[in-house]
Amino acid sequence: MNEMLNTKVTPYLKQRWSFLSTDERGVVTIENVPVDALAQKYGTPLFVMVESEIRSRLQRFKKAFSYQKMKVQYATKCNSNLEILKIVNNEKVDIDASSVGEIMLALLADFKPDQITFTNLYKSEQDIMFAAKLGINAITIDSAEELERVESVGEKMGLKINIFLRFNPFIEYKDYTSKYHQYGIPITMAEQVIDKAATSQYVKITGLHFHGGYVNHSKVYFLAAEKLVKLAAYIKKKYDITVKSIDLGGGIPFDEQYEQTFTPEDFGNEFSTYFEELVKKYELEMPTLIFEPGKFIVMNAGIAIMKVISRKELVDKNLVVVDGSCYSVLPDIFAAHATYDIVPVTKLNDTN
Amino acid sequence: MNEMLNTKVTPYLKQRWSFLSTDERGVVTIENVPVDALAQKYGTPLFVMVESEIRSRLQRFKKAFSYQKMKVQYATKCNSNLEILKIVNNEKVDIDASSVGEIMLALLADFKPDQITFTNLYKSEQDIMFAAKLGINAITIDSAEELERVESVGEKMGLKINIFLRFNPFIEYKDYTSKYHQYGIPITMAEQVIDKAATSQYVKITGLHFHGGYVNHSKVYFLAAEKLVKLAAYIKKKYDITVKSIDLGGGIPFDEQYEQTFTPEDFGNEFSTYFEELVKKYELEMPTLIFEPGKFIVMNAGIAIMKVISRKELVDKNLVVVDGSCYSVLPDIFAAHATYDIVPVTKLNDTN
Repeated sequence: MNEMLNTKVTPYLKQRWSFLSTDERGVVTIENVPVDALAQKYGTPLFVMVESEIRSRLQRFKKAFSYQKMKVQYATKCNSNLEILKIVNNEKVDIDASSVGEIMLALLADFKPDQITFTNLYKSEQDIMFAAKLGINAITIDSAEELERVESVGEKMGLKINIFLRFNPFIEYKDYTSKYHQYGIPITMAEQVIDKAATSQYVKITGLHFHGGYVNHSKVYFLAAEKLVKLAAYIKKKYDITVKSIDLGGGIPFDEQYEQTFTPEDFGNEFSTYFEELVKKYELEMPTLIFEPGKFIVMNAGIAIMKVISRKELVDKNLVVVDGSCYSVLPDIFAAHATYDIVPVTKLNDTN
Repeated sequence: MNEMLNTKVTPYLKQRWSFLSTDERGVVTIENVPVDALAQKYGTPLFVMVESEIRSRLQRFKKAFSYQKMKVQYATKCNSNLEILKIVNNEKVDIDASSVGEIMLALLADFKPDQITFTNLYKSEQDIMFAAKLGINAITIDSAEELERVESVGEKMGLKINIFLRFNPFIEYKDYTSKYHQYGIPITMAEQVIDKAATSQYVKITGLHFHGGYVNHSKVYFLAAEKLVKLAAYIKKKYDITVKSIDLGGGIPFDEQYEQTFTPEDFGNEFSTYFEELVKKYELEMPTLIFEPGKFIVMNAGIAIMKVISRKELVDKNLVVVDGSCYSVLPDIFAAHATYDIVPVTKLNDTN
């Protein structure tokens, strides 16, 4: 039968999405279910998230690192659908939540509070109280002002709140720079902020965090790890506080086949060795190493199925009207520049 | 007191939004209500739509045209909030709906079916049945395929469905051209499509429609009107069918103060005279003239109120984190290139 298939399109599909194939009619199948059967059962437009792809990417990410105390936190903001969170939980991966709503969804997906870290640029007093009361793993501190706010909440509640300090270590490598990022406390303020946190009765430094935005060179993680480990050593030496976790955030490229980027496998083991040596060099207890992939986990797993409902010949182009055209298939404004593959799913045998 | 106000900002505000002012503290007021009072009562982020602005723009639009049988249809898609639709109804303006959902909202806002026109690039059989059964004013036909679909629904239902034929008359004027638009039946297919519609038992041509996208020269409406009136004359002569409505769509610029555009007043009366003469010249009964403003009606009426919740000094800029930063204040991807004015609403006396 294979000879009948459109040999140009099918290998492309297979390479891009391993879970796609075509049946003998030339209809695209998702994990062997023909898309026309899905469309008939559920109607169109239909958005399919492929479970096996999410699971295999979670597994791949974990396996790519030989470092023993490696922990993966799925960045909930990339897709907070409850079923996906349940899959993540089932794969024994933790959660990075960027709002109280995401924390609630994580709880609904049966995550334990200590599997949840709360990271964003700003949390209200109410947000902090909710997270602290719940006993989540840590609240990430993004600015000096936020440290003050968390401290004052800790004081009001009579709690010592676990915090990660998020720093911007001004990493520069080739065309990458974090210097102009909005994430984290500028490293120039590190000593001052660490002193305030380390001597506070109401917060406990349990981790250090770096969020690099979109990271296009794996070398960035090596450079950031060094800066954070150095700060951990400083904290240990000056305040005798053990930083239990080093969190290098997200930003892992997802689209390794089409851009000159890197996969977790490309740097995972080398990075693990480097990180272990770094920890030894600075005479630290082995911290937990955290990465927060999100786009890498889910971005390849989504397939939108739409029906062509009319065609129009225009002066300079042929217009295809699809029944999903007014739906938000593009999730939001940040995806304005993303590119999508459009494939005629029921006509792959059609050579026209 | 006026001497105390920031004289640079306040006149700018007043010019841009007539409903804004400042109180003696330098706090911005919306129709004399200070924004901090609104924020205290309703919390932030808060999105305020100003009723008086919507009403005055609906009234302005109607008044700008001296043509007797002038009808304004508010383009629901620009803001389909139920309270706004009620205001529109109260101002005796009709509705242009682009989905069954919008038709339902119009009904909830107490519009009568014959005040509703259903216009978009595609309607499913179910959509057409719903609209036809309801007895709405007209269904706009955007393509030859859609004419066939509406006819077949009419046949199934044993109805003669009122239709507007939407044409793309390939208007070209200065930097404007509709030649590459996706809206409407190419005028090159006009005779063929008109023949099919005029001789059908199941549809009745009641109007002709042009949708020009964003219209940056009022001359476009003059040129489009001429093309549609000519077609109406052709339909009258060949089939003895009276086209009761000529609909010139939307696309009226909203932001007359900041771009070299035009207001309804700039062309309304001149256009009315021109249109009357056109109708006389082609010996037609006076049709209803329809415009479908949407952005012009609501786009200046929305004010988002957010609280600055933290400030961060970065290498090259100062970052202000606001509590609305993760909300969809920008309504969707199509607004990606819109520009917004950001004003420190409680600190207009602050000269720093």
